[in-house]
Amino acid sequence: MVTRKDVALAAGVSEATVSRVLNGVGPMREDTKQRVLQVVNELNYHPNAIAQSFARRRSGNLGVILPYVPKVHLFSTHYFAEILSGIGEAVQQKGYDLLLLFRSSEQAQDYTSLYHSQKVDACIILGSSDSANSEKALEQLWEQKLPFCLVNQHFANQSFNEIDADHVKGSYDAMKHLLNKGYKRIAFLNGSLQYSNSRDRLEGYQLALKEEGLEFDEARVFLGNYSRTSGIQAAQLIYEQKDNIDAVFAANDRMAIGLMQGLRELGVRAGEDIAIVGYDDSDAAHLSDMPLTTVHVPFYEMGKIAAEKLLKQVLGEQEKTLFQQKLATKLVVRKSCGS
Amino acid sequence: MVTRKDVALAAGVSEATVSRVLNGVGPMREDTKQRVLQVVNELNYHPNAIAQSFARRRSGNLGVILPYVPKVHLFSTHYFAEILSGIGEAVQQKGYDLLLLFRSSEQAQDYTSLYHSQKVDACIILGSSDSANSEKALEQLWEQKLPFCLVNQHFANQSFNEIDADHVKGSYDAMKHLLNKGYKRIAFLNGSLQYSNSRDRLEGYQLALKEEGLEFDEARVFLGNYSRTSGIQAAQLIYEQKDNIDAVFAANDRMAIGLMQGLRELGVRAGEDIAIVGYDDSDAAHLSDMPLTTVHVPFYEMGKIAAEKLLKQVLGEQEKTLFQQKLATKLVVRKSCGS
Repeated sequence: MVTRKDVALAAGVSEATVSRVLNGVGPMREDTKQRVLQVVNELNYHPNAIAQSFARRRSGNLGVILPYVPKVHLFSTHYFAEILSGIGEAVQQKGYDLLLLFRSSEQAQDYTSLYHSQKVDACIILGSSDSANSEKALEQLWEQKLPFCLVNQHFANQSFNEIDADHVKGSYDAMKHLLNKGYKRIAFLNGSLQYSNSRDRLEGYQLALKEEGLEFDEARVFLGNYSRTSGIQAAQLIYEQKDNIDAVFAANDRMAIGLMQGLRELGVRAGEDIAIVGYDDSDAAHLSDMPLTTVHVPFYEMGKIAAEKLLKQVLGEQEKTLFQQKLATKLVVRKSCGS
Repeated sequence: MVTRKDVALAAGVSEATVSRVLNGVGPMREDTKQRVLQVVNELNYHPNAIAQSFARRRSGNLGVILPYVPKVHLFSTHYFAEILSGIGEAVQQKGYDLLLLFRSSEQAQDYTSLYHSQKVDACIILGSSDSANSEKALEQLWEQKLPFCLVNQHFANQSFNEIDADHVKGSYDAMKHLLNKGYKRIAFLNGSLQYSNSRDRLEGYQLALKEEGLEFDEARVFLGNYSRTSGIQAAQLIYEQKDNIDAVFAANDRMAIGLMQGLRELGVRAGEDIAIVGYDDSDAAHLSDMPLTTVHVPFYEMGKIAAEKLLKQVLGEQEKTLFQQKLATKLVVRKSCGS
């Protein structure tokens, strides 16, 4: 095995100089640097990468903590695919690699060890629910000043770095669209309230009803889990109350599409017998038989901004100060609420 | 900072015993092990992870080398999303993390350094083209006995680990379907021949024609790049030859859907005026206005099998012998070729 000493001898410099070149620690003469690098290549020398990354104190990896969900095609969901694409764009620009870490939020977590063992320089937390365990794990990172950022999530009583979207306004806009079209008995198919973005949607739903002077009726609120299957299941429940419901606001497109499929089998046509609005603006929304009116969420941009801000802090290009940003959503009108 | 010595003192064992516990090197008494682990937790001791991983000689990361393509929403394409979901499933089961490495196949690469610097224990190569550079990089890995696997790709004169699908048969089946329906002037919209799976499709296309006693006509072969946009662009060229073409076999669903859209704007209706078969069986194929007849490729399974086999080798659960597997594809008949 080629050692640092071999490189130093061949290049006619000291071992310390070899280290300074490889760690990018200056100042030094350009010709010295070039000579050392040439010898490194010629001898196929692999510096003790471990010691080297210790010297730089950087792994070159941005971590993304994802929920541990066996058998779900995680990357095939619009939400994760788009956020990860945005993160991927930012890491490519910075020459970073992307470490995906599947972690169960049910179990107690110590994310700090990921930093101490130099697996990552910073982390983005994706799709985690508001469990006490995950909050504690984040507090620990915060106390140790280890850089991380939440995407599409916020905690009520905590100030962490976060890049979120304005889901209260997005949901309010979806509801206003239905109300302006004359629908008054609007059901709401939401996801779990463990997620801040589900709670935000509920707030928008209630806000729009209140502004219109309509009462909030618990009987019109249904709970799915953001899957298409849960939309199909909700169809039966909504069908049973069909005299009491003239429109449905679904908290994502997958549930909306499942709902439309389920209702069709019961003889109820979306866009004609019942109005439906989705949420996310996924490909499926416009490819669907009945193009879905929905709310566009800039997931790609959210991922990209979060990764850029974290990497700038890690690389010392930006101050390590708290950042929080809430991106705008946008109603996209198609045909599922009648024309 | 808590040191190994502190842990040893508090647990009443030697420093060597602390190391053996943390590196999982036996034999030792269970109560000793438990006492050490308890002290490690109480003192919040972070072993020198670097030295530790050196001792184990494992990073706990499976690498996936992806093409460097700025601004493409990589994870939102069916192909990458499904393969990565399958890989993700396997790494979750083994307690591994997934390191995504974006690398340009245009540039000379040295993948061996990823192993030497302990960024990864093994690699899956995805979506790379058959450039001399990437072949050379893979040969280097092979010579150094560093574990890696190609997914959905094979080299003509090389025997590397590979998990592929039978695209010759898949394309042949798509063509037979069209031929059996009476179409004889079948155009082929392929992707770049830099990819082995494009060449496989061409082979299947030619094989089916030959078997039917039909001549292969270069003028009916069109080149896209697997994007929807390239399908839209092909529509114009195919339209110009519409008297010479009664059906199109597209090498993936995205191009087929772009083609259908482009043709529709020119007044040509897929499934009525012209028959179209896609490839991949993505969500878009069945959600589309005109449900697309296509060829199902088990991308998820391919990713899962590749990751499982590599990790079993890395973890010493399986012999490090060459593996090559070609999974079956399956024709899915919908409406885009007439009913």
